Amino acid sequence: MEIKVLHQVMEWNEDVSAQVREVLAANHVCMINIMGSPGAGKTSLITALIERLRRDWRIGVIEGDITGQIDAEKIAALQIPAVQLNTDGACHIEAMSIQNILPMLPLADLDAIFVENIGNLVCPAEFDIGESLRVTILSIPEGDDKVEKYPLMFTETGCLVLNKYDMIPYFEFDENRVRLNYESVNPDAPLFRVSSRTGDGLDDLCAFLSGKIAQAVK
Amino acid sequence: MEIKVLHQVMEWNEDVSAQVREVLAANHVCMINIMGSPGAGKTSLITALIERLRRDWRIGVIEGDITGQIDAEKIAALQIPAVQLNTDGACHIEAMSIQNILPMLPLADLDAIFVENIGNLVCPAEFDIGESLRVTILSIPEGDDKVEKYPLMFTETGCLVLNKYDMIPYFEFDENRVRLNYESVNPDAPLFRVSSRTGDGLDDLCAFLSGKIAQAVK
Repeated sequence: MEIKVLHQVMEWNEDVSAQVREVLAANHVCMINIMGSPGAGKTSLITALIERLRRDWRIGVIEGDITGQIDAEKIAALQIPAVQLNTDGACHIEAMSIQNILPMLPLADLDAIFVENIGNLVCPAEFDIGESLRVTILSIPEGDDKVEKYPLMFTETGCLVLNKYDMIPYFEFDENRVRLNYESVNPDAPLFRVSSRTGDGLDDLCAFLSGKIAQAVK
Repeated sequence: MEIKVLHQVMEWNEDVSAQVREVLAANHVCMINIMGSPGAGKTSLITALIERLRRDWRIGVIEGDITGQIDAEKIAALQIPAVQLNTDGACHIEAMSIQNILPMLPLADLDAIFVENIGNLVCPAEFDIGESLRVTILSIPEGDDKVEKYPLMFTETGCLVLNKYDMIPYFEFDENRVRLNYESVNPDAPLFRVSSRTGDGLDDLCAFLSGKIAQAVK
């Protein structure tokens, strides 16, 4: 049966990402923008990464949520500088919000800031928030067709984390399909297989992130 | 540690949902807006529902995707009227798109139209597309905190489907937490436990949807 294809036009927003990037560079801070679907495991991964990376680096967090502060409370329990950004319904973080938040963090005493973006595979990818690095999380239960269906998120990222990798026996997930699609849109960015729950794969990801932080603090 | 909370302002769009609703009413068609995260199982659920509901009803599909037509090809294999809507990056479907698509479907020969919205727990909830009923899917692997973190999607829905329910032994998922949060924001809407893969729970959901379709075609 023939499939009709229609197109919906969207408007793009300009942002102040370049100014954010200048502030970060002046303060030698690496800002890492963590993105992924709702439930991909962003907060758990950030928590697990901070527990390891804090041995070598001074870390802060900007915790984005539509409403509430469930995740920020988990982060605050780590006793590191953290700010909750509530978007009040908006589906992504914009650079303007980051610009307003940075003065609230002790930038001179930080090497890296993790930004947990809104759970969403679409909109956050469209907005440069001034980050030094983007990290996209895809969890195994989400399925192996996501790179094809939400390509921008995977094209623009600095690395891809296949999270909940310990769940792969329970799902029909063709890892090869994801790998080939990811390589075709983003040939130079690495892929990490991780389980925040078991800790498997975290060392490789931490080594990669440490390299990026080391570049920023120079 | 103290958590600072900031707020990001968003703009809302007016839409033409009332006009869509008039066209549907004039043609006695029930339009069902299916929403949920990427990978929640929207296409698999729609396919499984159509296989059952087509015994009693004439069904069409509007398949929303950012790009491509992976899902529409699965639907077209059912040999029913289907239109692919590509949003070209936009994170939700708007009523204007539905208004443009409806004349391409044989409305006089349909009882129900399933609209598969973009995989996204945020933006689609903000846009009334003129639907008769909203169905929100939450899959077990996404976690039990989603009603609290993305409340609008669960407040505005006509029912909640807990999908991939056969996976509950493998995840730390407190169903009671979801149920209580859902009841607190949406006390009158039912909750269904479903596995598209095993078929469990589909009969109850089909009975509910059949009731809604019967109201529309009167």
